[in-house]
Amino acid sequence: MTERRTAAVLGLGLIGGSVARDLDAAGWIVLGHDTDLGTLAAAQEEGVLAADLGPDMQRLPEAEWVVVAVPVDVAPAMLARIAPAVRNARMVTDVGSTKRAIVDAADRLGLGASFVGSHPLAGGHDSGWTASAAGLFRGATTFVTPTPATGAAALEAVRELWRICGSRTELLHPADHDRRLAWISHLPQLASSALALTLESADLHRAALGPGGRDLTRLAASSPGLWSAIALENADNLTPVLQRFLACLGEFQAALGARDAAAIQRLLERAHEWATVS
Amino acid sequence: MTERRTAAVLGLGLIGGSVARDLDAAGWIVLGHDTDLGTLAAAQEEGVLAADLGPDMQRLPEAEWVVVAVPVDVAPAMLARIAPAVRNARMVTDVGSTKRAIVDAADRLGLGASFVGSHPLAGGHDSGWTASAAGLFRGATTFVTPTPATGAAALEAVRELWRICGSRTELLHPADHDRRLAWISHLPQLASSALALTLESADLHRAALGPGGRDLTRLAASSPGLWSAIALENADNLTPVLQRFLACLGEFQAALGARDAAAIQRLLERAHEWATVS
Repeated sequence: MTERRTAAVLGLGLIGGSVARDLDAAGWIVLGHDTDLGTLAAAQEEGVLAADLGPDMQRLPEAEWVVVAVPVDVAPAMLARIAPAVRNARMVTDVGSTKRAIVDAADRLGLGASFVGSHPLAGGHDSGWTASAAGLFRGATTFVTPTPATGAAALEAVRELWRICGSRTELLHPADHDRRLAWISHLPQLASSALALTLESADLHRAALGPGGRDLTRLAASSPGLWSAIALENADNLTPVLQRFLACLGEFQAALGARDAAAIQRLLERAHEWATVS
Repeated sequence: MTERRTAAVLGLGLIGGSVARDLDAAGWIVLGHDTDLGTLAAAQEEGVLAADLGPDMQRLPEAEWVVVAVPVDVAPAMLARIAPAVRNARMVTDVGSTKRAIVDAADRLGLGASFVGSHPLAGGHDSGWTASAAGLFRGATTFVTPTPATGAAALEAVRELWRICGSRTELLHPADHDRRLAWISHLPQLASSALALTLESADLHRAALGPGGRDLTRLAASSPGLWSAIALENADNLTPVLQRFLACLGEFQAALGARDAAAIQRLLERAHEWATVS
């Protein structure tokens, strides 16, 4: 019988809670922390957490792996707070949708060798412990963002973490990650929220939509707090991306204004080809 | 034993094919027409159609109900073509996503009493007979657009048709329908297509998206031909709606440009409230 290994998960929301569930299911001893005491109690009652890390996270040095799963705007401060207690951890990671700030913070705190940023591309518009689930990451891609400072053992450990969670990993430079995510994730979020605001302005309710409109406005239900932090942190990348989206909508607007059937059809055909071929 | 009633369905795509399947399942004799002879053969082989209407739709006068299920840009011409043969039909309807042009055509053709426009808010991005399915309309809303010329018997018949299909009906003036649909259906379609073009311009494939981004780009796979006709026919309504969407995106763009966290959060909160409350 092998000795059970210990991991700490800080922040038991949708992502942190799901990671905790997968680690527990894989036989790890999971210690947890959350500012919401009800969440902390629920996670222990459900047997996912072996124990609370303690009010000052005193048990943190026991953890071989540490997963920081708090909103991106508080993650750097959390990393600074725990830095002294995780010097001996084999691997520290986070799960945020933006990576430059947290990776910079880790480097500044002298955690560069053991810290590797992660970002699992999974989950929906729900948030919190009650939305977390075992197997959430199964089949999903997790971006992992090592730097030249990252140690080989930490990188191998973070890959093992996501393998346990059933996710494949893709390595990306933190800056490339943030640039790419502006297109593939942050833009869809803002498009969905802007569509919601547009329909709200016409006094139309979501229940009035057909299946297609419901698909497009689902993300608008995402957590405003989590997403305003993400959008703000990635504003430099997101601004030109949003500009490109406005330009593409402008092409439709111009074709409609000119009643140019051929131009409208060409735009829809290119979109159709992208959506069906790629 | 009651005598079996006869309906004709013209155009056996996603919507027409699904209507034919539901009528057949309800015991109706369904006669059909489609410009695609393979579709016509398949619908008969599957036992959905009792028979082909004939190369010149000679059997059309046998139909008590006539459902015109062709793209909106060819529906008025189809109605003109069949007008002499449907003078004795109890009810003639269509299923298009825009209603003013077809209702006007019916009035001009002297079919005002028996014609009632329909528009079932169902189906996805797939099209064609192979995408059609029994029960497609179950639980969906179908807009029905009578005019002062509409006869009571025709209106009752169109309601019975959609009851057979499991859909609830909502009466709307044709002009109100087209205005409303610009918001709840045509805008989401263009937003999805524009998002596809935006991602295409950055050389990003749909497979790179997470679940949220996939939701938002699903509609981009809709038929370009069907949708360019819809967008063009409803261009007068769609233009100001698209303008409003551009303005809402512009609010996000301004808040991001100003790095105004509170403004971004307020916008996301309003969108969140709309998406979760309404």
